[in-house]
Amino acid sequence: MEPGGVEVRARSLASSAGDGPALVATLVGLVDELRATSQVDAVGLGIAGLAGRDGVLHYSPNLPGLVEFPIGPELEQASGLPVAVGNDATVATLAEARLGAGRGSDHLALVTLGTGIGTGFVLGGRLLEGANGFAGESGHSVVDADGPTHVTGQRGPWEYFASGSALGRLGRDAAAVGAFGRGVELAGSAESVTGHHVAVALGEGDRQAAELFDGWCRDVALGVANLVLLLDLDRIVLGGGLVAVGEPLRDGVARHLVDLLPGASHRPQVDLRLAELGDDAGALGAALLAAGRD
Amino acid sequence: MEPGGVEVRARSLASSAGDGPALVATLVGLVDELRATSQVDAVGLGIAGLAGRDGVLHYSPNLPGLVEFPIGPELEQASGLPVAVGNDATVATLAEARLGAGRGSDHLALVTLGTGIGTGFVLGGRLLEGANGFAGESGHSVVDADGPTHVTGQRGPWEYFASGSALGRLGRDAAAVGAFGRGVELAGSAESVTGHHVAVALGEGDRQAAELFDGWCRDVALGVANLVLLLDLDRIVLGGGLVAVGEPLRDGVARHLVDLLPGASHRPQVDLRLAELGDDAGALGAALLAAGRD
Repeated sequence: MEPGGVEVRARSLASSAGDGPALVATLVGLVDELRATSQVDAVGLGIAGLAGRDGVLHYSPNLPGLVEFPIGPELEQASGLPVAVGNDATVATLAEARLGAGRGSDHLALVTLGTGIGTGFVLGGRLLEGANGFAGESGHSVVDADGPTHVTGQRGPWEYFASGSALGRLGRDAAAVGAFGRGVELAGSAESVTGHHVAVALGEGDRQAAELFDGWCRDVALGVANLVLLLDLDRIVLGGGLVAVGEPLRDGVARHLVDLLPGASHRPQVDLRLAELGDDAGALGAALLAAGRD
Repeated sequence: MEPGGVEVRARSLASSAGDGPALVATLVGLVDELRATSQVDAVGLGIAGLAGRDGVLHYSPNLPGLVEFPIGPELEQASGLPVAVGNDATVATLAEARLGAGRGSDHLALVTLGTGIGTGFVLGGRLLEGANGFAGESGHSVVDADGPTHVTGQRGPWEYFASGSALGRLGRDAAAVGAFGRGVELAGSAESVTGHHVAVALGEGDRQAAELFDGWCRDVALGVANLVLLLDLDRIVLGGGLVAVGEPLRDGVARHLVDLLPGASHRPQVDLRLAELGDDAGALGAALLAAGRD
């Protein structure tokens, strides 16, 4: 792709983060590999957690070895290139907005349904970074204050109910009480059921899977309604592995959204779409951020 | 005030809205009165409800006679002046941001605790209007999906728990079971207790009022935490009549916010302040909007 004279490429490389210096060394190696065949102007990083504007990862349950390590400044020094650091969900939003399912909207959210829920926003045409670069932690927003306690210690955050992991839990819970027979067949046992098995059974037309899935879509829509109420979005892009489910996902969330959004009949309909860039969104978005196209 | 060469004045006039044409006539009268002594360049309206960028009020439980009436365009025609229309909470946010407790922050919310909860946002230094002008309906965002049914028909929206009205309900509920004796004394009866009586008893040092108020501050903080998670705000301005409570309100919400915000110790502290402009915020903000200072 060749937008505005800036060459942007996306590459992915499996890597165990280890500690900060080790990651910097890995990244410098990748940059040098790219430099052998291309001009490299800048480096963009999309990292899970509270990635600050200062290029430091301030909090990340998944990358404890990197917390408070100045990954951005260190990589700048080691590579001699400008480095932009952003949250992974935030940069993926930038990619979908500029190159994917968000094109044509200036008021959108990407809602990535995975282990948790990652979100990012483009508001008034601009990527929302927030005061520190921490915007978009919607998965942790509380939707059921008296609900179950999540791994974060919070009671009833959105991702407890509506992440991809949550769909798997719903499947296991149903299977354990004999209400998801096909799931047990697919997974081998009730406790092995995951969201993937629910999706497969749904695709086969299994009635129990359809019921489970519909309840889960309602919980996705509940949090989406909260986002629309706050931000007056006209586009919601749903991302994550469950996008493979296709139209039943999109339509399931859209139908519940109309019921859950106060004054829905007085608002232009929110355009719900499925993400188009898949796993590449993070890398593409980080590159766009590095190229100053946020 | 004389910002940037544009003269902005604020006036308020008690008026029953009636229907659209009657309101236009009232407003033209007010404009003519101002014109008798001043140059009037533009008219700004802050209206409760879904006030569209198109100058039409699309939904408003409180102003049914105005719904779908093109108040903006009609007033432009009748007055011969440019007219800007915004939601009342949104324009109040603009005023606090530019002239009040929001000065110095580019990432803030005004949270007005009244009959419901009205909010507005300035993000990256810009007033958030959203796709249609409907942004900031946080009071309707669901925080307790299995909670009580609110007047909106929703279960467990934030304003059910954390509005000024909610504080009154907490006071009445406590009084009804003998747990708010001072409230009954102040109000005359358990069923007459309002948020005002809770605030008065709190100011007197009443222990039961302090307990009620602390629980309510936690519910205010719960919704504020959701806003901070989504938007990475560095300033929250609390508005509404209960601002008269002063520091106990500010401190009560701030203390609970630290507990409710995941990763709070890894984030710069959010600056909680009390609104400074009182009832003038709406008129001042509408004027700023009309003057193009959003």
